Amino acid sequence: MTFQQALTHAATGIEARLMAAVATLPASAVHDAMAHALTGGKRLRGFLVLESAALHGVAEARAMQAAAAIEALHAYSLVHDDLPAMDDDDLRRGRPTVHRQWDEATAILAGDALQTLAFALLAEEATHPDPTVRITLVASLAQASGAAGMVLGQAQDIAAESAGRPLTLEEITALQAGKTGALIGWAAQAGAVMGGADPSRLGRYAAALGLAFQIADDILDVAGDADLAGKRLRKDAGRHKATFVSLLGLEGARARAAELVAEAEAALAPYGADAERLRQAARFVIARDM
Amino acid sequence: MTFQQALTHAATGIEARLMAAVATLPASAVHDAMAHALTGGKRLRGFLVLESAALHGVAEARAMQAAAAIEALHAYSLVHDDLPAMDDDDLRRGRPTVHRQWDEATAILAGDALQTLAFALLAEEATHPDPTVRITLVASLAQASGAAGMVLGQAQDIAAESAGRPLTLEEITALQAGKTGALIGWAAQAGAVMGGADPSRLGRYAAALGLAFQIADDILDVAGDADLAGKRLRKDAGRHKATFVSLLGLEGARARAAELVAEAEAALAPYGADAERLRQAARFVIARDM
Repeated sequence: MTFQQALTHAATGIEARLMAAVATLPASAVHDAMAHALTGGKRLRGFLVLESAALHGVAEARAMQAAAAIEALHAYSLVHDDLPAMDDDDLRRGRPTVHRQWDEATAILAGDALQTLAFALLAEEATHPDPTVRITLVASLAQASGAAGMVLGQAQDIAAESAGRPLTLEEITALQAGKTGALIGWAAQAGAVMGGADPSRLGRYAAALGLAFQIADDILDVAGDADLAGKRLRKDAGRHKATFVSLLGLEGARARAAELVAEAEAALAPYGADAERLRQAARFVIARDM
Repeated sequence: MTFQQALTHAATGIEARLMAAVATLPASAVHDAMAHALTGGKRLRGFLVLESAALHGVAEARAMQAAAAIEALHAYSLVHDDLPAMDDDDLRRGRPTVHRQWDEATAILAGDALQTLAFALLAEEATHPDPTVRITLVASLAQASGAAGMVLGQAQDIAAESAGRPLTLEEITALQAGKTGALIGWAAQAGAVMGGADPSRLGRYAAALGLAFQIADDILDVAGDADLAGKRLRKDAGRHKATFVSLLGLEGARARAAELVAEAEAALAPYGADAERLRQAARFVIARDM
């Protein structure tokens, strides 16, 4: 199986698990909007859960629960991020955003319920028979996604737009560690947590990967193809926002991303050949066109 | 201690726990907005947790965690409900709503992080030493607040406004069972769950109490004083929405609420005198002016 096939295989399984979870909910516009928001996407975060779980001998059915949870959490953040009061985007994963397809109220509620769904999935016995593992996953996802993690990064991003000066490289690195790095970190470490292993190596892997991911996103915003990406690009230039590209230049940003991928791969050294898929994921992150 | 003193005592303890939780978060506008949204209110849901916990011999420090969690969850729902795309309210608990004091983006993010905080609090060891109890609380709160509970009720409420006909008494009762009943149900049962007891009696108590609460809210909307309530009233009339008052008349609604309070009290009979505070809470719910 090539890396792309493995990613597609994972995405199919994760989407099936998510649709099964949504299917148990009563009919409502919010239900439909949740299903819409849970469709498509690269599923990188879910893939990291599945691969880190495989590395630690965790059964795929269990890992799929945690993979679905992180993708539900990610989907909530996208639905709310796309709202007019936030990034005001019309297109996501090549389709209308939830507030364009329905309305803002439905998007707010669907995002809210997607966050709830993430915690609901982790709490299910199917995730892990040991409740201590489940509660650890809940606590760490809350830490990664709340006002000390992802939401903090989003708040810093908004504050930066009205700060009157572009962010420094140090500030933007710290911001992105929360905004995108925290969930990627949770995803990569979840498999170790579920396998009862020390997640710290995977934490180092994910820190480098997460930053490379964000640099690649900034490069994509400048040099990417909106049709392939399935979302609006050239957003940052329009806002005179500091990005890794504006701070390092396009070539500098590419070089820094490649360095980080090497760092991410190096963190996996003790796992040997077993971690090949995770190495490929790191390389994929900077090579992707979506 | 009178009932009002007990309620105030509980509110003080719950607010202190919530402020301590928020104090651990990094500084940001979202942090400030969370603290704002967590200030004030009747704390009825938290009070129900504390009282149901006391009834089952659960230590107050543990119960306070769950009480803080349900109030964080409730605060998130209010912040998002008040947004322009939802109820568009300027005033809450006698102060500007979060999107009026800050902006919509901050209100969206603060609500998001308040939901996360609720699950984070339940996941802490301080809530209960047994992880099975903690994960049960997480799972049941997700069930009560998600797209099969509170959010479903909110979605039905929005759908009702564009339905072209007023809801029937049956439909509005089902809607409110989700919108306000689910969290009240969770709160009243949490103490039994924490004490390892059967929560079904408290479930029956809460179902009657929750409906009485919503009928009282509808009466307050028609007959209340906005200064005392600390929020905009006469909202329903302006929207030609079906309410318990429009369907039953003011006196009919008062009579139904009194009936439900009697039902709630009856459900507590097996607890005897120990449940006196919960009986008082039921009577308070229909006598309150806020």
